[in-house]
Amino acid sequence: MPPISSQARRFVAGGQTGTYALNDEAVARLRAGEPILMLTLGDPQTAPHPAIIAATNAALAQGRTHYSPVTGEPEFRAAVAVSEGADVDNVVVMPGAQAAGFAAISAVAGPGDEVILSDPHYATYPAILAATGATARLVPVRETDLGFDVAAIAAAVTARTRAIFLTSPSNPTGAALSIDDFARLAALCERHDLWLVVDEVYRHFRYDGPHIGAWVHGPPGRTIVLGSLSKSHAMPGFRLGWLIAPEPLVGAIAGLCSAAYFGVSQFVQDAGVAALTLPEAAFADYRRGFASRAALVVERANAITGILARMPAGGMFVMLDIRSLMPDDHGFATRLLREHLVAVNPGSLFGSGAAGHLRISLTPDAGVLDEAMQRIGRLAAAISS
Amino acid sequence: MPPISSQARRFVAGGQTGTYALNDEAVARLRAGEPILMLTLGDPQTAPHPAIIAATNAALAQGRTHYSPVTGEPEFRAAVAVSEGADVDNVVVMPGAQAAGFAAISAVAGPGDEVILSDPHYATYPAILAATGATARLVPVRETDLGFDVAAIAAAVTARTRAIFLTSPSNPTGAALSIDDFARLAALCERHDLWLVVDEVYRHFRYDGPHIGAWVHGPPGRTIVLGSLSKSHAMPGFRLGWLIAPEPLVGAIAGLCSAAYFGVSQFVQDAGVAALTLPEAAFADYRRGFASRAALVVERANAITGILARMPAGGMFVMLDIRSLMPDDHGFATRLLREHLVAVNPGSLFGSGAAGHLRISLTPDAGVLDEAMQRIGRLAAAISS
Repeated sequence: MPPISSQARRFVAGGQTGTYALNDEAVARLRAGEPILMLTLGDPQTAPHPAIIAATNAALAQGRTHYSPVTGEPEFRAAVAVSEGADVDNVVVMPGAQAAGFAAISAVAGPGDEVILSDPHYATYPAILAATGATARLVPVRETDLGFDVAAIAAAVTARTRAIFLTSPSNPTGAALSIDDFARLAALCERHDLWLVVDEVYRHFRYDGPHIGAWVHGPPGRTIVLGSLSKSHAMPGFRLGWLIAPEPLVGAIAGLCSAAYFGVSQFVQDAGVAALTLPEAAFADYRRGFASRAALVVERANAITGILARMPAGGMFVMLDIRSLMPDDHGFATRLLREHLVAVNPGSLFGSGAAGHLRISLTPDAGVLDEAMQRIGRLAAAISS
Repeated sequence: MPPISSQARRFVAGGQTGTYALNDEAVARLRAGEPILMLTLGDPQTAPHPAIIAATNAALAQGRTHYSPVTGEPEFRAAVAVSEGADVDNVVVMPGAQAAGFAAISAVAGPGDEVILSDPHYATYPAILAATGATARLVPVRETDLGFDVAAIAAAVTARTRAIFLTSPSNPTGAALSIDDFARLAALCERHDLWLVVDEVYRHFRYDGPHIGAWVHGPPGRTIVLGSLSKSHAMPGFRLGWLIAPEPLVGAIAGLCSAAYFGVSQFVQDAGVAALTLPEAAFADYRRGFASRAALVVERANAITGILARMPAGGMFVMLDIRSLMPDDHGFATRLLREHLVAVNPGSLFGSGAAGHLRISLTPDAGVLDEAMQRIGRLAAAISS
């Protein structure tokens, strides 16, 4: 084989923090017919609202199957702008928030640069850094509650730092940036001339108060927000997201979009317009379901000797702290799958800052979560005894 | 604004060969209600086959709206493998051939490397090179007939060359690589340890014989093929394409897919399965239409004093050679739009190797093309007189 690029060599060397081997094993066994309870992925099991499907069908029938501008259809950009409180010229439509994060980091960092990630962080961020060639600088979350530690972030800034890249509400921790966090991050970014990139795909899932958004509370002119309909509207398979960035950066990002995407499907964007123009009430039950399942999991977890859990500020996950029971989260998750047919992601999959934790996805029904928590309790009892 | 990446600076500096200003003017005037005849873009005006739309609607109704493996759904990968004569493990599903080209070049070239492009080339290739940081080395096509010039390609190889990146059948020239061309390119790639990347999105549009495909005729282990349903099945708005690459490279490309795409819509891939499993006969009239419109345009063009045209080997375009009439193709196209309300792309938009030519898209109806050629004849007469 001829030589491959330095980027490709980074991927061959392995760009991921942890291994998905356990999830892959669970998926394979589920496909083979075993009744595995899947608590691994944040893939909403709810169908998209019927009006969204109807809008997609209608767009297909109307011939909305042609090329689209690389920054997005005007109607969908406008709907995102309204929803996010941004100007339409700041919005770039992307095929999902993953693509948005890739484009955002590509635009602000490259080889020789450093990007600050929280540890733990969302599992594909290292792949984004591997793609751009920038180096991750990992800042552990607070050990006590897995919250963001802005003082530790400040201490990690070097002359090579270009951006701070966070998820709020966070996957996996469930922590959310506060107004005070933003004030301190903004000052930090101003002082060191940094970008603040915030992935807000869970913004509609807040359990302790309103969402505090980076576009409003982040440092003006140096904030990039990533968004998507995958979680908020149960549309992961539509691959529809966006980024919001200062206008001078939008031009450069549009260039990358020409190179790497060449627009997003018209009929998918029409579905997005339908999603964003439905009344919020249409999604209230769906989103409240996550809050009530989070409360259920937290209550069940805290009733198990050796396991602690805290109601997340937001997001689609609850973290179970099993450190006093068995610090080897991967070992616990392996036994849980093989002996009790429950699949969860070990916290260390998302970084060593979440070692000794299990990430529980709140996408399954309450009945499934209840049964899974009973099995986790049985394994915990077996380990403690 | 904080610093931007070297990649973003390349886009701010402008990654494109030519300017789309004339096309943008035409689109704006069309939207304003002027009866512009649009012969610029290769966006098929035919609707996708009803079975493809039905398959999309059925997939949506069946809840095919979840995350998909980053290399693609097994069924669609298998359908592509059958269609392309490749192994399923060589196929990576991408959101369009543009993304496939971006991933392919990213995997084999980066800053400091050179990639050989033909001049003229498809208009977004320079954006791909700007994204990767590799440098384009342009090799003019034959001046006589705009055919590929493999000897000139060989002469352009340097120690920094990593890949030869061509489109066959070509956009804009309509030339296609022959078995003999492939033999010489394969020897060249073996001798200099190069990749051969061939964009075959027009493979189903061949007018002078069967398609000669790179996966079969290119150098084994060093060939990457780009494909898409946009042209062949009139599905540009589905954003569905693929690349075919040697298996060792597929792993690295899958890493980039995790970072930059995170999978393609399930229901879109289901539509792709429907498209690729329909009998070829279902698309015969659609594809034959391009051949007959190409013949029409060539005949009308050659009847105009000062204009020469040749039946293309394939693709969706006819090149009009206006060099003896008016070497300034941009000037001709500007007058054609402003005085005769016909929009065409000047050849120099695709590189100086196509200066003095106009690219005529064969997507409009024969009646529109006939009228457009009459107006081109009137402008030609005005210029010659």
